[in-house]
Amino acid sequence: MSDEIRVPSATLQAHARAVLIALGVPDDEAELVAGSLVEADLRGVDSHGVNLLRVYFDRIRGGEVRPHAELRVLRESGPLIHIDGGLGLGQVAGVFAMDRAVERALEHGVGVATVRESTHLGALGYYTLRAAERGAIALAFQNGPAFVPPFGGLAPIFSTNPFSYAVPAGAHPPVVYDVATTVVAGNKIALARKRGGAIPADWALDAQGRPTTDPEQASLSHLQWFGGHKGYGIAFLVEVLSGVLTDASFGHTHVSESHVRDGRRVAKGYLFIALDPGAVLGTAAFRERIDALIDEVHASPPAPGFERVLVPGELENERRAERLAAGIPLAHGLLDELADIAAQLGIAPLRETP
Amino acid sequence: MSDEIRVPSATLQAHARAVLIALGVPDDEAELVAGSLVEADLRGVDSHGVNLLRVYFDRIRGGEVRPHAELRVLRESGPLIHIDGGLGLGQVAGVFAMDRAVERALEHGVGVATVRESTHLGALGYYTLRAAERGAIALAFQNGPAFVPPFGGLAPIFSTNPFSYAVPAGAHPPVVYDVATTVVAGNKIALARKRGGAIPADWALDAQGRPTTDPEQASLSHLQWFGGHKGYGIAFLVEVLSGVLTDASFGHTHVSESHVRDGRRVAKGYLFIALDPGAVLGTAAFRERIDALIDEVHASPPAPGFERVLVPGELENERRAERLAAGIPLAHGLLDELADIAAQLGIAPLRETP
Repeated sequence: MSDEIRVPSATLQAHARAVLIALGVPDDEAELVAGSLVEADLRGVDSHGVNLLRVYFDRIRGGEVRPHAELRVLRESGPLIHIDGGLGLGQVAGVFAMDRAVERALEHGVGVATVRESTHLGALGYYTLRAAERGAIALAFQNGPAFVPPFGGLAPIFSTNPFSYAVPAGAHPPVVYDVATTVVAGNKIALARKRGGAIPADWALDAQGRPTTDPEQASLSHLQWFGGHKGYGIAFLVEVLSGVLTDASFGHTHVSESHVRDGRRVAKGYLFIALDPGAVLGTAAFRERIDALIDEVHASPPAPGFERVLVPGELENERRAERLAAGIPLAHGLLDELADIAAQLGIAPLRETP
Repeated sequence: MSDEIRVPSATLQAHARAVLIALGVPDDEAELVAGSLVEADLRGVDSHGVNLLRVYFDRIRGGEVRPHAELRVLRESGPLIHIDGGLGLGQVAGVFAMDRAVERALEHGVGVATVRESTHLGALGYYTLRAAERGAIALAFQNGPAFVPPFGGLAPIFSTNPFSYAVPAGAHPPVVYDVATTVVAGNKIALARKRGGAIPADWALDAQGRPTTDPEQASLSHLQWFGGHKGYGIAFLVEVLSGVLTDASFGHTHVSESHVRDGRRVAKGYLFIALDPGAVLGTAAFRERIDALIDEVHASPPAPGFERVLVPGELENERRAERLAAGIPLAHGLLDELADIAAQLGIAPLRETP
């Protein structure tokens, strides 16, 4: 494709790391965050890949996100741990929290980590997959700034409230589910505006709350929930677990002072649950049965219009293999953005990164 | 309405209890199951109310469900408990399991109960609401016989895989979410056939896997997931947590011998998670903030076509209040069915139940 070039993932990760270090992020945190971004790019979740460096650049420069995430364990007891993310890059608290949840699960059968005062985590599936790779079933709930109305309403109260889980398998790679509880994220509508043409009527309402298929009329603060009231119910649970229970910000109005810079809320709360399959069924039997369930799904005849039948995360696994081999495609617009960031930071541009 | 009569809930519960006792169910179990059925009727979940007595009658008489649920605790350790439901009425194991999960949550911050070899639970929200009334946040996952295909497929591998949660509030009643992960349950299509007219295109495929709005063409073994692949992902999680992890039946083929009577699978697995808000935020603060979130939702201007904006479970709460006062409406068809059961069991009919 002429409007993008392929960049080896290692090169992209080294560059992302250099950008973060130049922003004052400590080496180990920069390594971790860069790895999480490139992992999202590898899996095709481009909205949560190095594309986010622009956001992190702006927020660290603007003082909304602190370059060093000074984590504090506020409470820990048995299977629970409660963490303050120190308003640093969310990935630092996210990895710490999920690893602690998994450790607790391996000891107690279940582990729960709650995090407040953290920021953007990147793709939530990064954390649940990490847990599954360590043998645990993991669930992750995260909230964020309020711009999505409740089902049937117009006031912005929720974020796109993502939910993710991952399940370890045996011969198969882990199953990974990672979705916004809105039908789509706002950037899909922004993209449709650039491309032109109609959008599905269930993506968003217009500014007056009426259904629309016109991306220009679709309001980014009137996104709609997947499956209507059923998806709204999932989003409400996400808000309760990640925002209310964790002593973080929630809804439109419950925002603590420290969560705001220049009137913009950047803090997010999240909750991770890890379960050890070994504590109930036994690890080997569990993995074998998950494989059997995946095999059953694969053996299903496809419905008309489908070529094959998949479990969550398979397309992303395939894309990862392809991009690991062929490089990560980056659009010229993104390359320009990265070049601008590198210039502002006085570091070598991506094309000169070894 | 002329095609139904109103019956006081206490009368209905006494009659349901008498039916179960006549089927050989011990008094205390009959009381519990009758209460759960009438509670569903009160909340307007008629598909999971006394309507189920016919199913229970057939299954107990047919030897598929045992009149006494001989529960066995297979394993317990810290926050976990693993239970064998003894193929008795599911409500008995369900209440036992949820109460143990809540006890564990109050002790450890989180409690997890897994159940295998159980049967139909009635409405899943009964258990999560029960936990919320005892102060815990609860999540419930349940699987069942395979008749729903994976997203994009045609082979029946999953059940309607319900998911429920409930959250305690302060001044407000608990928030209760209780849904099938399919757009609708099969009985809605059966009902549409009786009534005639079109059904929404996302309810089910026809027998060849093509979309249809004709209820006669819609296949009860091709129900579709709410929100497409996003709802499918929730159903897959339900299958993993309630069927695989619990050492219960799962998918189409993994069915242990004891789960089958006359070739029909009746056993279900389930998993309950209870969280104590007091272990993280503190109980009083949590309840106050849930109230604030509910108030925010209520204060949202409604979108066109909506009169007000609600949180999950509110309509059911209102229906419960109305039916508690005015009685539970029962259709004549259901009354005839109950009369037939009473006659077969040689007990007093509903109209003579005090």
